[in-house]
Amino acid sequence: MARVPTDGINGDLGPLGDRLATIGDLHSAASVLAWDRQTYMPQGGVTGRAEQLATLARVAHEMLVSPETGRLLAEARQREPGSDEAAFLRLARRERDRAVRLPSRLVAETSRATALAEQAWISARENSDWSPFAPVLERVLDLKKEEASYLDFEHPYDAMLDRYDPGATTRRLRTMFDELKAGIPPLVRDVSARIDEDHAAPLKGGFNEKRQERFGREIISRFGYDWSRGRQDRAVHPFCINFGSPDDVRLTTRFDQMRLSVGLFATCHEAGHALYEQGVNPAYSRTPLSGGVSMGVHESQSRLWENLVARSKPFWAYFGPELRTAFPGAFDGVDPDTIYRAVNAVMPSEIRTEADELTYDLHVLLRFELELALFEDGLAVADLPEAWNAKMEEYLGIVPENDTRGILQDTHWAIGYFGYFPSYTVGNVLSVQLFEAAVDERPEILSEMETGEFGALLGWLRTNVHRHGKKYEPDDLIERSTGRPPETASYLRYLRTKFGELYFLN
Amino acid sequence: MARVPTDGINGDLGPLGDRLATIGDLHSAASVLAWDRQTYMPQGGVTGRAEQLATLARVAHEMLVSPETGRLLAEARQREPGSDEAAFLRLARRERDRAVRLPSRLVAETSRATALAEQAWISARENSDWSPFAPVLERVLDLKKEEASYLDFEHPYDAMLDRYDPGATTRRLRTMFDELKAGIPPLVRDVSARIDEDHAAPLKGGFNEKRQERFGREIISRFGYDWSRGRQDRAVHPFCINFGSPDDVRLTTRFDQMRLSVGLFATCHEAGHALYEQGVNPAYSRTPLSGGVSMGVHESQSRLWENLVARSKPFWAYFGPELRTAFPGAFDGVDPDTIYRAVNAVMPSEIRTEADELTYDLHVLLRFELELALFEDGLAVADLPEAWNAKMEEYLGIVPENDTRGILQDTHWAIGYFGYFPSYTVGNVLSVQLFEAAVDERPEILSEMETGEFGALLGWLRTNVHRHGKKYEPDDLIERSTGRPPETASYLRYLRTKFGELYFLN
Repeated sequence: MARVPTDGINGDLGPLGDRLATIGDLHSAASVLAWDRQTYMPQGGVTGRAEQLATLARVAHEMLVSPETGRLLAEARQREPGSDEAAFLRLARRERDRAVRLPSRLVAETSRATALAEQAWISARENSDWSPFAPVLERVLDLKKEEASYLDFEHPYDAMLDRYDPGATTRRLRTMFDELKAGIPPLVRDVSARIDEDHAAPLKGGFNEKRQERFGREIISRFGYDWSRGRQDRAVHPFCINFGSPDDVRLTTRFDQMRLSVGLFATCHEAGHALYEQGVNPAYSRTPLSGGVSMGVHESQSRLWENLVARSKPFWAYFGPELRTAFPGAFDGVDPDTIYRAVNAVMPSEIRTEADELTYDLHVLLRFELELALFEDGLAVADLPEAWNAKMEEYLGIVPENDTRGILQDTHWAIGYFGYFPSYTVGNVLSVQLFEAAVDERPEILSEMETGEFGALLGWLRTNVHRHGKKYEPDDLIERSTGRPPETASYLRYLRTKFGELYFLN
Repeated sequence: MARVPTDGINGDLGPLGDRLATIGDLHSAASVLAWDRQTYMPQGGVTGRAEQLATLARVAHEMLVSPETGRLLAEARQREPGSDEAAFLRLARRERDRAVRLPSRLVAETSRATALAEQAWISARENSDWSPFAPVLERVLDLKKEEASYLDFEHPYDAMLDRYDPGATTRRLRTMFDELKAGIPPLVRDVSARIDEDHAAPLKGGFNEKRQERFGREIISRFGYDWSRGRQDRAVHPFCINFGSPDDVRLTTRFDQMRLSVGLFATCHEAGHALYEQGVNPAYSRTPLSGGVSMGVHESQSRLWENLVARSKPFWAYFGPELRTAFPGAFDGVDPDTIYRAVNAVMPSEIRTEADELTYDLHVLLRFELELALFEDGLAVADLPEAWNAKMEEYLGIVPENDTRGILQDTHWAIGYFGYFPSYTVGNVLSVQLFEAAVDERPEILSEMETGEFGALLGWLRTNVHRHGKKYEPDDLIERSTGRPPETASYLRYLRTKFGELYFLN
């Protein structure tokens, strides 16, 4: 391996830094290819792209597990505890320890199978036809189970979780979901008795896509999203992606002409992810420290901007009038409070990404339980749609109209992201804990919001969360920034207060 | 290296096929990154992208020059002469023989330097400011000279040429340009005496970009461009790109509201490249046989569709009326013959890509002579603008208004493509030789064109040129398809006939 000049931490770490930067570049290249696949790639590109992604995954994996990388890691001298370099070594060793257990063949095969499955999912979703997708998904699941079999975890599903949330375990998530299962459904029941479909009416109707896009861009520009280091495109399933640095962080979104909230909150959600990535210390670029620390913390950022900000009263005090300007005629005589109620209208529904804040976690709970059943071999892929619909009825009181609006709504399983869904709820829980800590420390956050300013909030997040990248373990990061370990109590209290007030429960 | 299942030729070649497919995938990934950089990448991405491209170039290079690849190539059993497998081995060996002479460090450094230089060129071009670009270009030139120093060619410039046109030599190009220099300038002089600026007038004015784009799409759809295996985007400098297979071949274009011909002919030109790539035998995907055989033959395809087709009388017999529909009001009362004269109006001008067919090669001649002077060390980068302007005056009788319209107009040097320009003229020469052979064999090509049909022409090109990919050497391919070796006589005769008739020279 030829020596590549690098700066910052990589430079300090010499050939090991170079090697990890090279591996990082291969993953970044794969991310660019994935972005392209989901935005602009023509249909014909499917097969070739799957091969390219498989190759990048395999080559990166081989380089990471190579004896040369092992030797460099083993020989690296001890760094000062708490330093960036010490974190670099810890993360690199963990990544390699996981990777050496997996055969390159499996890594490449998983990359190829998921690239193909994603396309199969897109057409299954278009045609609402589960049957051709089932065997493709089964193949992906088998590969993920095989992956779990090589890794040393108490529960095979822990092997999935660990990838997204280092330290998360099935046991711990069961506890979290148990607490939420005790707290949320009674609240949903109370609210359900008072649901008024008219609440959401102002957000329904015909909304020009260009105007939606412009309004969304205005909002996230005010949040602080830096367009010189990113862009926004359309995708079937909105996502945020970056390429090993905070300097090119892109988001995607989709719009629904009939429902303003779909594109609006997808935009705020992905912008939350993007603000996190744009805020990571640039010195961590091309190192194992780059990027958000875990999917749970990542989702805490997306859900914070989506819910604590964009579904809040102070937010609409400013953006209510802006909305009137953005969609001439559509909001005449609609006051900010009405909009606030509209964006928070509770209505058990089929689609997770469009769910209100209160029922959202029930969608995640359902997926968590199904994934667990798949990994505990209690459920066959063939039986998934039935199990899905049964749980939808149990938790949300509705059965999806078809599979597109049911089991085919999410891309996660197709791309092999088993174990990712719980991150959304972890994110919800953490979003409240972080937001409350931020407001505690900088009370002007709320008044700023009323004037469309978000500098104090973004500043607090940058300092306490974003800039650290992967330096601290997720739990440490939360404890450092909020003064206590992750806990569900604040989240449940927040939900009770917000929806109690909205639905006059007391 | 884990074994990857592959089909076709790669499969027949076992582990060697896998290895070359992997290397090909890395190059394809780099092409996706390059496409993105030139179309959608935000400004912030520049540095990271340069690193990613450098890494891909270095890893691919290291894999190609590795002893393992050498061993597999050395041990490969002889294949039947004339077979695809024999061509595979010949091409793979040639590629490796070239690569082993170059240090990986140089390959990565060239990739990084050109990625950065391209951005420097974009801003230099925007500001028409040569001075900040000069040292960046000098660095690229030094790297290319260093590259030439490692390769074993009679003339250092031959090392550049060989990359784009295997078999091309400085000596041979000098002969070609001498012949053209004897034939074209007298013709330009004769025509110049009869130039009437009104000829081109119908193509000037305000043309809506969306309409231009739609009209261009209609034309190239009729040519046979397959949109399910490609797409069209905007770029500062139009290009065509593919990713190791005929299944995702993209073109880019740019439009000028005031001059219809800019976008129109750029679109036809890039579509010519794209039709070539889409026509390559799919069995060659991910092998050294994939893609066009040389830049000269590639340009023969782009120039054939641009000039022999889209600047021809039969073409405008069909598209003249279409043009009237596409731009309501703009072409009322303008007959096809007037449009034919307009698209062929000769007017010595500053910009190569916008040059008429007759003066085009003088732009190339100028660049060829400057490149040669740079590689023979007779010219310093600092003196380039002056030398450029002097030659512009000598060959075209004009001095560019500024450097944006002069030396900064092309991206080639910034991206290290020294030795590429002559391919345009080689392409012009071959385009006529090929087109005449096609019409000889299938005379209906001309009458089809009058009805907006191009099936016979595309069919002939597919069979005789496209499908072969890199299987035959460029000269062999031309001789197989036209019955004689490449020669300039037909080209000069064609120019004399066409422009003699247009300008009533006899």
